[in-house]
Amino acid sequence: MTVTTREQCAALDREDPLRGLRDEFELPKGVIYLDGNSLGARPRSAAARAAQVVTEEWGVGLIRSWNTAGWFQLPQRLGDKIAPLVGAKPGEVVVTDTTSINLFKVLAAALRVQAARDPARKVIVSERSNFPTDLYIAQGLADLLQQGYELRLVDAPEQIGAALGADTAVLMVTEVNYRTGHLLDMRAVTAQAHEKGALAVWDLCHSAGALPIDLHAAGADYAIGCTYKYLNGGPGSPAFVWVAPALREQFWQPLSGWWGHEAPFAMAPGYRPAQGVQRYMCGTQPITSMALVECGLDIFARTDMQALRAKSLALTDLFIALVESRCARHPLTLVTPRDHARRGSQVSIEHPQGFAVMAALIERGVIGDYREPRILRFGFTPLYVGFADVWDAVEVLRDVLDGETWKDARFQARSAVT
Amino acid sequence: MTVTTREQCAALDREDPLRGLRDEFELPKGVIYLDGNSLGARPRSAAARAAQVVTEEWGVGLIRSWNTAGWFQLPQRLGDKIAPLVGAKPGEVVVTDTTSINLFKVLAAALRVQAARDPARKVIVSERSNFPTDLYIAQGLADLLQQGYELRLVDAPEQIGAALGADTAVLMVTEVNYRTGHLLDMRAVTAQAHEKGALAVWDLCHSAGALPIDLHAAGADYAIGCTYKYLNGGPGSPAFVWVAPALREQFWQPLSGWWGHEAPFAMAPGYRPAQGVQRYMCGTQPITSMALVECGLDIFARTDMQALRAKSLALTDLFIALVESRCARHPLTLVTPRDHARRGSQVSIEHPQGFAVMAALIERGVIGDYREPRILRFGFTPLYVGFADVWDAVEVLRDVLDGETWKDARFQARSAVT
Repeated sequence: MTVTTREQCAALDREDPLRGLRDEFELPKGVIYLDGNSLGARPRSAAARAAQVVTEEWGVGLIRSWNTAGWFQLPQRLGDKIAPLVGAKPGEVVVTDTTSINLFKVLAAALRVQAARDPARKVIVSERSNFPTDLYIAQGLADLLQQGYELRLVDAPEQIGAALGADTAVLMVTEVNYRTGHLLDMRAVTAQAHEKGALAVWDLCHSAGALPIDLHAAGADYAIGCTYKYLNGGPGSPAFVWVAPALREQFWQPLSGWWGHEAPFAMAPGYRPAQGVQRYMCGTQPITSMALVECGLDIFARTDMQALRAKSLALTDLFIALVESRCARHPLTLVTPRDHARRGSQVSIEHPQGFAVMAALIERGVIGDYREPRILRFGFTPLYVGFADVWDAVEVLRDVLDGETWKDARFQARSAVT
Repeated sequence: MTVTTREQCAALDREDPLRGLRDEFELPKGVIYLDGNSLGARPRSAAARAAQVVTEEWGVGLIRSWNTAGWFQLPQRLGDKIAPLVGAKPGEVVVTDTTSINLFKVLAAALRVQAARDPARKVIVSERSNFPTDLYIAQGLADLLQQGYELRLVDAPEQIGAALGADTAVLMVTEVNYRTGHLLDMRAVTAQAHEKGALAVWDLCHSAGALPIDLHAAGADYAIGCTYKYLNGGPGSPAFVWVAPALREQFWQPLSGWWGHEAPFAMAPGYRPAQGVQRYMCGTQPITSMALVECGLDIFARTDMQALRAKSLALTDLFIALVESRCARHPLTLVTPRDHARRGSQVSIEHPQGFAVMAALIERGVIGDYREPRILRFGFTPLYVGFADVWDAVEVLRDVLDGETWKDARFQARSAVT
């Protein structure tokens, strides 16, 4: 069906079986929020949960809440709720620290495994367009080790296979590219890595909660990801980490803090890693921020990733079609793949004045974000974005472009934008 | 003055110039909270601040709050509020990550500095009774580096000097021992380290907010610390890190995430550390937990560390005197030094059945904690603990010991206790 009216979009919303989930979120009036791929919207339940943690658990329970409010169990309880969203089993995922820190842990672990198998493997293969912090962390680790590790960066996903070789220790890639929205085939790419004897580390930041992931079926070795984007965990909420069972008991990691210890309260001077997922932990976690992650995760329990993926693709299909039909006379270039199998849950579009166009959109209440160079990025969270939202967003985009309002000086000034 | 009645204690409270600060905290009825050295009590303002962050900043501001609500500036703004409490200057402290992670950063940085000066320095000197996570982190780093680094542990503070030598890269110590409450002389111990060419890393977890600290006057090289104990930042709130100005521009650290980058939004594939304190940062921080740290810090702005220290010593003096006079017939052994110059803001007392005694105390509303082996630990936060509280706590302790209620089976079972 070709959609040509807002009424058709409203009808799609009425027929949407996921429509009710939107009521689980608080969204400000006058805003169409297309930046859930950067910071997910707030679950309605988060306000009461925050009050409970601060007033009751901290204020009244005080130190006792480590036991009575389940703070000790929280990282693993949340991990168990993420597990079904990424194709992991209970007890395999833990929520802790940041994505960057968790990447450091699993990279160090992977390099240690490879050093024991074949010390000549000194290369970490990745994409030049990978999320920068991933590359920085690999650089930091290589620099720290001073053992000749190096990063080999490819310029396009199809070059990954050729970059892997007998010298490769680790392939480190992000399933959905933050800038282009390009989706890698996790199973095929992992197979390429394994074929060359490399371990595969997957960053799920832009895919967890956005599309179905099956870490076990893909044969992945390590995965890390973020809870504050599509999982709606709150600003800067802690990240998660998963390690394949086959590698778990040899999962040594250097950030060996008390919470990863086998017996943290024995207060022994020597480190002994805990069994299982707890050994991926390090220091004391930010409980208030972490507790709010559960509000987002509990919404996923009311649906499934297949239904969310179907709606996500329908939303991004519609957005692409409407932009191409209604903004045809403007210099917009689609960056995100049209192929469903290669598309995440965002649409990236290049415009020569992308920064100013996005600033003008945000002023009009259409919140996407801008990424260097020239990219307008629109994220579609199927839990709370509807089809009429897509129509309205494209109408505002058309208006901004037609009216050239983005040429106003106030939209030219750069400031920090995530 | 020898205190022999509760009325004398109540009089001390009435005369206490800091008494008004207690109203800044919410403490549950029926509780005497002597565990602020493990998790500080909740500032009254934290409830409204949490609601603001969750409802307004996250819920309404959404991604825009990184700029409009000052989330980008938060780690440094909080750092600037910690600075005067630890003898640092504005722009020198940043709040980020956990104590364990920050210790990893500064240890790695210190070893790198020393490797350039004298590669033969391979020893990290510390105390066997140091907080275990500090030792674990040093072990993890040494294990990761595979360059022959080793940990040399001494059994008593007075052995530190003799353990330092031409082979020592770093002295890593905690100013106040978590178990004994023993306070090191930061200036003298740092001088011993420098005399032998070692760099001094200070853990301030049990001293920041508890007593005056002057990192500059002491000549310290690196410091890390916690915000959820005496600083009352909330459960697991992020930690802080300080580096001496002379070492700052050579402060390389391996946890090189996006937030430590010179130009994070240029999205360049190569890491370039930011100038100044921002380079100690790594990944995205837990904003809700971090924002609440400010509630605790703002209370410190209403007093000064000298006044707090005077009250802290008066409280611990009184507690020791009352325990010794009123519980004299019980097998209690004072572990914490009597010498003010060697005492932190806690009193640790050994009892052969320490675990059960503490469990019985907690049931009666006197919340301290237990530390292996056999130690009853009582922390005195002068911001909200009063002299009558001390009297009442000792009376409950006496009652528990006299009545042998701790012999009840329900007080024998071990569970996780922080």
